[in-house]
Amino acid sequence: MTYCVAMRLEAGLLFASDSRTNAGVDHIATYRKMHVFELPGERLIVLLSAGNLATTQSVISLLRQRLAHEVANLHNVANLYEAAVLVGNTVKEVVARDSSSATLGQGVDFGGNFIVGGQIRGESTRLFHVYPQGNFIEAGEDTPYFQIGESKYGKPIIDRVIARDTSLHDAAKCTLISFDSTIRSNLSVGLPIDMLLYPADSFAPAEPHRIDADDPYFNKLRRGWGEGLRRVFAKLPDAEWF
Amino acid sequence: MTYCVAMRLEAGLLFASDSRTNAGVDHIATYRKMHVFELPGERLIVLLSAGNLATTQSVISLLRQRLAHEVANLHNVANLYEAAVLVGNTVKEVVARDSSSATLGQGVDFGGNFIVGGQIRGESTRLFHVYPQGNFIEAGEDTPYFQIGESKYGKPIIDRVIARDTSLHDAAKCTLISFDSTIRSNLSVGLPIDMLLYPADSFAPAEPHRIDADDPYFNKLRRGWGEGLRRVFAKLPDAEWF
Repeated sequence: MTYCVAMRLEAGLLFASDSRTNAGVDHIATYRKMHVFELPGERLIVLLSAGNLATTQSVISLLRQRLAHEVANLHNVANLYEAAVLVGNTVKEVVARDSSSATLGQGVDFGGNFIVGGQIRGESTRLFHVYPQGNFIEAGEDTPYFQIGESKYGKPIIDRVIARDTSLHDAAKCTLISFDSTIRSNLSVGLPIDMLLYPADSFAPAEPHRIDADDPYFNKLRRGWGEGLRRVFAKLPDAEWF
Repeated sequence: MTYCVAMRLEAGLLFASDSRTNAGVDHIATYRKMHVFELPGERLIVLLSAGNLATTQSVISLLRQRLAHEVANLHNVANLYEAAVLVGNTVKEVVARDSSSATLGQGVDFGGNFIVGGQIRGESTRLFHVYPQGNFIEAGEDTPYFQIGESKYGKPIIDRVIARDTSLHDAAKCTLISFDSTIRSNLSVGLPIDMLLYPADSFAPAEPHRIDADDPYFNKLRRGWGEGLRRVFAKLPDAEWF
């Protein structure tokens, strides 16, 4: 599996992805699931991917190799909506190609989910979730985040903490705690984590940060959170009815 | 959906279940998913159920009406293992009966999951998870708990807190927090919660406690936990790399 989170806050955008892929427990590997397309000063488009690795890799490869010569590509689409359309069409193209074997393809899930977000000059930041069918939804005022992959373990802490006006620093903290909870409870999600924080309207070069098992900040955070939880837990009252 | 948890600790057993059932968002109802079979002083057997409501209700009905006249029933089986076998056989019987319509049954999931736990004099406490196929696994030294239904949202807090030597009071606290997290993140799990705490070797009459939206203890707990989490969160350091 996979775990990816993206948030669209007033302060900017956050993207985070784990990097474990598995096709059975004896076929585990590490792949980057965060893909950056940028023209610093003009546009940043970030893709996070989950699902069939053959599909998601092909989609990224096609999107990259078409930057040079396709009429519409991620370096020239006029807005983020058109970027989501392009990603959706590419997903449909790859799934149609790979699932065309009538005999061998049965029972294989060729689907992939993508989160597409960023900013193109002339627009504010935008964030989309592109489904395996190629259609997509956009994050709005009341839904500041999307998750794909193993999303349930890490959802409660996000639901408790994140609002539109959360700072990028707090969003990063919350996201790393969400990843920590997921990694502890599910073997198919694993380090390293790639994280990208983009302040709105900065058009600054994207600098994804990679967090692995000996990252001092991540370890300080997981220790502080675990100890803090146990302290809070210990202070909660016992039931009177038992 | 449903969310049920059971724990087998040195101090005794804990059972908890929500009570929301749904067949589509416009067909939501409240049903008890905790079912107690007991002969105080001699045996306690508790069943928690998740899955197809027609199946799980039929299984419970058959197990109850057979108490009077079947050769093997939950009031006379010699041990908890035989109780799990009996529940498994009854699940298979009901699923076979209900899925026998070749035309109408297609695409319907007739399956149900059961947690079966308790104590019969002569044995220590035992806890089983009975699958829709009728086979089952038992909780051991290293796996003190089972969950069925919407288990992922509430798993991280259990993984952080529960060990074999956790007290029943702490187990109850942790379980209610786990339910709170699940209920906040998933509409298909809802109050009231039924909770039963059984001190090992007590053979005391089972007294399930029902917790609804205005339960003062549950509300104190969710408020204390939510505020505590935000306090711990606020004290965690910011990332140095951003």
